[in-house]
Amino acid sequence: MMSPSYQKENNSFKMRRSSYKQNSTEHSKLKIIPLGGLEQVGMNITAFEYEDTIVVVDCGLSFPSDDMLGIDLVIPDVTYLKDNIDKVKGIIITHGHEDHIGALPYILKEINIPVYATRLTMGLIDHKLEEHNLKNQIKRKIVKFGQNVNLGQLRIEFIKTNHSIVDAAALAIYSPAGTVIHTGDFKVDYTPVYGDAIDLQRFAEIGHKGVLALLCDSTNAERPGFTQSERTLGKLFDSFFLENQSKRIIIATFASNVDRVQQIINSAYKYDRKVVLEGRSMINVIETAQELGCVNVPPNTLIPIEQLKNYPEEKVCIITTGSQGESMAALSRMALDIHKKVTIGPRDVIIFSSNPIPGNEKAVTKVINELAMKGAEVIFQDAHVSGHACQEEIKLIYTLVRPKYAVPVHGEYKHRKAQAKLAMDLGIEKDKVFILSSGDVLEMDEESAQVVDKAPAGVVFVDGIGVGDVGTIVLKDRQQLSEEGMMVVVLAMDQTTGTVLAGPDIVSRGFVYVRESEELMEEATDLLKDVLFDLEERGINDRGKIKTSIKDALSDYVWRKTKRRPMILPIIQEI
Amino acid sequence: MMSPSYQKENNSFKMRRSSYKQNSTEHSKLKIIPLGGLEQVGMNITAFEYEDTIVVVDCGLSFPSDDMLGIDLVIPDVTYLKDNIDKVKGIIITHGHEDHIGALPYILKEINIPVYATRLTMGLIDHKLEEHNLKNQIKRKIVKFGQNVNLGQLRIEFIKTNHSIVDAAALAIYSPAGTVIHTGDFKVDYTPVYGDAIDLQRFAEIGHKGVLALLCDSTNAERPGFTQSERTLGKLFDSFFLENQSKRIIIATFASNVDRVQQIINSAYKYDRKVVLEGRSMINVIETAQELGCVNVPPNTLIPIEQLKNYPEEKVCIITTGSQGESMAALSRMALDIHKKVTIGPRDVIIFSSNPIPGNEKAVTKVINELAMKGAEVIFQDAHVSGHACQEEIKLIYTLVRPKYAVPVHGEYKHRKAQAKLAMDLGIEKDKVFILSSGDVLEMDEESAQVVDKAPAGVVFVDGIGVGDVGTIVLKDRQQLSEEGMMVVVLAMDQTTGTVLAGPDIVSRGFVYVRESEELMEEATDLLKDVLFDLEERGINDRGKIKTSIKDALSDYVWRKTKRRPMILPIIQEI
Repeated sequence: MMSPSYQKENNSFKMRRSSYKQNSTEHSKLKIIPLGGLEQVGMNITAFEYEDTIVVVDCGLSFPSDDMLGIDLVIPDVTYLKDNIDKVKGIIITHGHEDHIGALPYILKEINIPVYATRLTMGLIDHKLEEHNLKNQIKRKIVKFGQNVNLGQLRIEFIKTNHSIVDAAALAIYSPAGTVIHTGDFKVDYTPVYGDAIDLQRFAEIGHKGVLALLCDSTNAERPGFTQSERTLGKLFDSFFLENQSKRIIIATFASNVDRVQQIINSAYKYDRKVVLEGRSMINVIETAQELGCVNVPPNTLIPIEQLKNYPEEKVCIITTGSQGESMAALSRMALDIHKKVTIGPRDVIIFSSNPIPGNEKAVTKVINELAMKGAEVIFQDAHVSGHACQEEIKLIYTLVRPKYAVPVHGEYKHRKAQAKLAMDLGIEKDKVFILSSGDVLEMDEESAQVVDKAPAGVVFVDGIGVGDVGTIVLKDRQQLSEEGMMVVVLAMDQTTGTVLAGPDIVSRGFVYVRESEELMEEATDLLKDVLFDLEERGINDRGKIKTSIKDALSDYVWRKTKRRPMILPIIQEI
Repeated sequence: MMSPSYQKENNSFKMRRSSYKQNSTEHSKLKIIPLGGLEQVGMNITAFEYEDTIVVVDCGLSFPSDDMLGIDLVIPDVTYLKDNIDKVKGIIITHGHEDHIGALPYILKEINIPVYATRLTMGLIDHKLEEHNLKNQIKRKIVKFGQNVNLGQLRIEFIKTNHSIVDAAALAIYSPAGTVIHTGDFKVDYTPVYGDAIDLQRFAEIGHKGVLALLCDSTNAERPGFTQSERTLGKLFDSFFLENQSKRIIIATFASNVDRVQQIINSAYKYDRKVVLEGRSMINVIETAQELGCVNVPPNTLIPIEQLKNYPEEKVCIITTGSQGESMAALSRMALDIHKKVTIGPRDVIIFSSNPIPGNEKAVTKVINELAMKGAEVIFQDAHVSGHACQEEIKLIYTLVRPKYAVPVHGEYKHRKAQAKLAMDLGIEKDKVFILSSGDVLEMDEESAQVVDKAPAGVVFVDGIGVGDVGTIVLKDRQQLSEEGMMVVVLAMDQTTGTVLAGPDIVSRGFVYVRESEELMEEATDLLKDVLFDLEERGINDRGKIKTSIKDALSDYVWRKTKRRPMILPIIQEI
């Protein structure tokens, strides 16, 4: 949403920016601006600006936090891009996770610009745009690793990395002011399941030529050591299938982790089981990956869920969504016995091939308890490796790239701070390390780098089909309603004389049981009658004042009686 | 709350019970009944019943889960005790944690029965009863370890254990039908900070004489190995104080972990720092513990927080509540810069001596990020040991006690299931292991044990000063209000003719911004006018039907336009 204070910031930003331009020398600087809300983990979107060129990297969405009541999705505020639309040349997407592509349909509806991404990433984007009927309106280009894209005064090179999804890319962004490397989400996997290992040689080569800034993934910057290869899980799945030959096997994992699904399918095939994919996103992603050849399924292995009943339990394996305890996902529906095709029982063994994302722990535990109560065996450990670089990998990248400035990206503040510390341990001076806030305009060239301004940046709430029509006031109301309920006081008044014709009547919802509160309601009604009588006596006729008096009197009374503060809504009808 | 279906269950229970009595032999059986809501972790309360004697063990409260909007506390439903009040001889409390004593003031208001507990436990209970002005009305008796309490036909012995609070007890419950051992929350600490190690000899002795059932703490039953001694943290705190001699030290931990606080005070004293206790419960618990001699503070070490400003930062240490990210706790207020006496900055180092309780992870992370943004160093690992027994300790207790039946208690379903598995690994047959649900009546003697009935059991919500006046209907309303907001439609009608005199007027809250929705509201009002006109044409005058028509028409319209379902509340005023 665009609040009044934004508007103001935005104007002052423009003013300051133009005054800066007048004072600047002929050597322009490169600007890096994180848009979206950095406090909302997952909302990855960064603008790179050089003179009249802006290139956007990633366009993620995030899911509402507990205080965003009723909100479905949270997307970035792109006011800055709209205000500078003539400069915006394109969006580069590093990989196909929701926190990097999820907001694309919403943002592209506002600003129609071309999208550049690798093959699987684009496959997933295409699917998303189709769902929003946007596919034909947006220019898209698939880019190969090693290939460059020229956008205005910036050139962007795609570099192969590894991550928990196939076809993840790092970017080298070349500008007249210098080169920036953005790792995207990455890990170093020397033995990936599909495709090549991360192109460390290319990182070294670019580093050797001189790199201004490194924007490196911080997600695991607090963790020492090296992240395990995805391939290590293959053996684990094999032994798991070996040990559970008499049971039905159900494995929950992230739909987007194509390599993980590939390894599960490999083990299932080896142990002669049919595989059912369950959950909308699981089916979508694997279908897209199959079409592009990123996943290799032996013939007659996948069966549709409708055929499940035709096979004995010990001859099937279900790969399902819901590893995060999401309430509407397939696994949660199985756990609550409301899944149409799968009933959980003592002959099931269920493995969580995932770690709970912070905040989801309780939901995951609830699903595990429900599954266990139905007699299933639930295995919840060791069947997951991270997709993000740990400290030794981060140090490796810094050492290959040897950047002048460090700008930790991705992850929460504490993760970025942990990477800042690593960067300083590697010899980068403190004043060359930047932990940016949303909207910070970091200007840099070989001589210096500093945050010079604040661009408009923030979040926009999506609720139903409304984008941006729910803001902080509505959320504050929802908060009060959710905790204390509400009381409506209605009153019919003679328009001219101000005589009360009917009411006051009190109706409550979400407050207390009606039968428990009859006495309370009667007393409150009497009290309000006294208030109205008193106002009339004093000749007070102003509707606003009458409403305020009703509100105050009822609020005090209810607080005294119950220690609660329901929302009070006085409505006067004029007859 | 007591719902109608409860009432029914309760009646049928009584009927079945009396018919059972007629058929029973002269040897009565012992009944074990978990009351409260077992799905609510922390609400520990169990009834032990033999003929005309009921003894209650523990009386905990739990905190509301995410779907219990606006609820402050959740306490057990003790309908079963009220229905059998003549039998209830007393409440035995195993230790002084909230999940074992928290509901006492609420329950004792309903059923006035004597309370038995060890010294520190009773100190904390006394404090609680004082707050509720109940202390003079309730009979209380302090019990020593090894001492027995005779209550009707049951005898209860207190056995020394170790836990994350001083003076924790296990119970041996002797009945004519046999002996039951209830461990309470416990761990095996051979080198406790205060007092003796767990009385393993006594467990062995009672076990040797024959034990019917073991009710053993399951909280850590999924964790292999042995829980570390509390004392191991002493050295860690020493090295922490040594390494941070130039900084102010702030340590967040559980108020009730007296031994933890003792060790921090020891290190602070050794390194010549003054100690400030901060947070209401921290001050309460440590004061009580000091009075009882359970904590030993060197003179001139504790200073009140007001004196903080008189000492240099590197000469003080603050021990504070808020290690779980609780929004109103002292540490959270420091993190948000709204604490009156403590301002966080780069000269602070903050250690979390705690693990997040499941569900609190996100709140804790938020506090850490806020503290880090203020420049403080935050240390969050290794500075905590659990208070609960891991697998090897659980196996040790089973092996000493050698019970006939295993009844895992405490922890979530998955934890109790993990202990059930351990019990079976130790040779207890599957049909002698019981994972009980709330209200299950487990009857046992030497011959057999089985769940024979269901007693009323469940939870009661506390909201403000209301106990039990908020139930599922109110919560459902709050849920809808919180996610979708509401629309009130008011209408004034001529009482006799049914003519619309004013309205329909629509007022919304928590739905959409008013300025964004003007058109929507106008269209909706027009639509409702048409609906009313149509009803009048058709001669429909019934107020219920009119309300339903308004609700349906508006709901359909709003869903079509916004894909949201606000609560719709039609109010007709009769003039």
